[in-house]
Amino acid sequence: MIAVDWGTSSFRAYRLDAAGRIRDRRAAPAGILSVAEGGFPAALETQLGDWIEETPILMSGMVGSRQGWLEAPYADCPAGAAEIARLMRRVSWEGGRREAWIVPGLACRDAAAVADVMRGEETQILGAAEELPEGAAILCLPGTHSKWVRLDSGRILDFATAMTGEAFAVLRRHSILGRLMPPEGAAAAITADAAFDAGLARAGDPGGLLHHLFGVRSRALFGEIAPAALPAYLSGVLIGRELADLLPHEGGIVHIIAEPGLARLYAHALAAAGRKARILDPDCVARGLYRLAAHLPKRGGHG
Amino acid sequence: MIAVDWGTSSFRAYRLDAAGRIRDRRAAPAGILSVAEGGFPAALETQLGDWIEETPILMSGMVGSRQGWLEAPYADCPAGAAEIARLMRRVSWEGGRREAWIVPGLACRDAAAVADVMRGEETQILGAAEELPEGAAILCLPGTHSKWVRLDSGRILDFATAMTGEAFAVLRRHSILGRLMPPEGAAAAITADAAFDAGLARAGDPGGLLHHLFGVRSRALFGEIAPAALPAYLSGVLIGRELADLLPHEGGIVHIIAEPGLARLYAHALAAAGRKARILDPDCVARGLYRLAAHLPKRGGHG
Repeated sequence: MIAVDWGTSSFRAYRLDAAGRIRDRRAAPAGILSVAEGGFPAALETQLGDWIEETPILMSGMVGSRQGWLEAPYADCPAGAAEIARLMRRVSWEGGRREAWIVPGLACRDAAAVADVMRGEETQILGAAEELPEGAAILCLPGTHSKWVRLDSGRILDFATAMTGEAFAVLRRHSILGRLMPPEGAAAAITADAAFDAGLARAGDPGGLLHHLFGVRSRALFGEIAPAALPAYLSGVLIGRELADLLPHEGGIVHIIAEPGLARLYAHALAAAGRKARILDPDCVARGLYRLAAHLPKRGGHG
Repeated sequence: MIAVDWGTSSFRAYRLDAAGRIRDRRAAPAGILSVAEGGFPAALETQLGDWIEETPILMSGMVGSRQGWLEAPYADCPAGAAEIARLMRRVSWEGGRREAWIVPGLACRDAAAVADVMRGEETQILGAAEELPEGAAILCLPGTHSKWVRLDSGRILDFATAMTGEAFAVLRRHSILGRLMPPEGAAAAITADAAFDAGLARAGDPGGLLHHLFGVRSRALFGEIAPAALPAYLSGVLIGRELADLLPHEGGIVHIIAEPGLARLYAHALAAAGRKARILDPDCVARGLYRLAAHLPKRGGHG
């Protein structure tokens, strides 16, 4: 089968054998925003090349959003693989000769009954669930929109999203804070250094996030933090706030799914908060799609 | 005398009589960012016109910042008019024949000993202080960088800044939240309507600001808030958070200094938080400069 993770800005495909092992992979910066309306079948064929002949093809991520190929619904929490598979949507082209399946997103309501949504992460979580111990588990999928997820025996109970990565990006690029920092191209990658730690610690001070953000500026004005260290400090302030607000109090390891640099940053932040972290395989999306494929209706053989 | 409030994006001047009453005013979108290096004397003469002959000329605001005419220092809290006046800096041009005075900023340390700064607001506060009752008072100067100030008998004890207005602007213009909203030019001004109230209420829910920001998106996706109402909802979420974090617990009226629309918005938010508000005269900056002028050294008559 072919497993596709098609997000806003990137396209990743995996060729899996019958046991779900990754045999090959392809990736391109060909996210859904680069595809014109009606252009999804052609874009998929271009990216998959000769893999297009293999079946089934399952796709997760923003390809199922309003801006994607077809708007797939949201499954409601709590949900496991079966409930999510039930809402997969079939797309076909070339007069129905070719087809692919789009995974739904996942929705829940927070303590105040306000909706939260994910699209793509649910499939990563299903893939990671097999690596988790039995019983309750906490997952963190940091990024543009960080997800904090509670699982129980492989079922997704609920989750909460924080706009941490996007807040960092817009503040760094467009606010007065960014003007104090080196240009993005010239700045070092953010690592768990002393400035990041200072930001994490700051998040525990009184005054709240909007005050701590202005403090990035005043500390820079007073020369307390060097310009080159400001991005890491800002990142620490934001991630520290995210953890203070969303890290579940019940103990236990936090399982992280992210690209390696970001995963290490969060593992460090969790350690600073006194919590153990375990970094999971970021390719778990392929495993999740493999699990969902098992729920597909048996093919009628129109190929 | 001439009182000048010279900020990042605007220039305001007042002609005052000997008793400090405003006789005339001039304003232009000629903030310091529009002035080239070395161009401040000419810019001041252009803006003041024939008023340039009057003395003294006192200026407050970002004109005293690193990007301004001359970097004036910061006075330390607690401070009253005398301490602030002591750090005024003289600028002169035309071989010393013309001169003006630049008011310092004000700095303090918060509970965690992190620096906070203001530049321009200290002069507004000094002007407003005469309108305040004796004893303790709370001032709020909302805006791009909102200031919460504690006074005692006209002296500024300390203050805290929240980046509320700037956070709103960058999220509205540059984040995924803005894409759900009507274009800025087509959007109505934000007023204390039901969507603003819903945002205020949201700030009291668990999950924290970064989660509530993502909730703006998910509520929009589920059609719970109409696109036209999203800017007011986002504003309510941010202002609600600011109040939850920085509104001093000790009771009493909160005195607001802001342009009328924003002052009304904050007065409404304070009422929703169970607090009384009183909106002060936004021209208090002229009164503050008048008070500071009383501390100037007597002129030696080199005019």
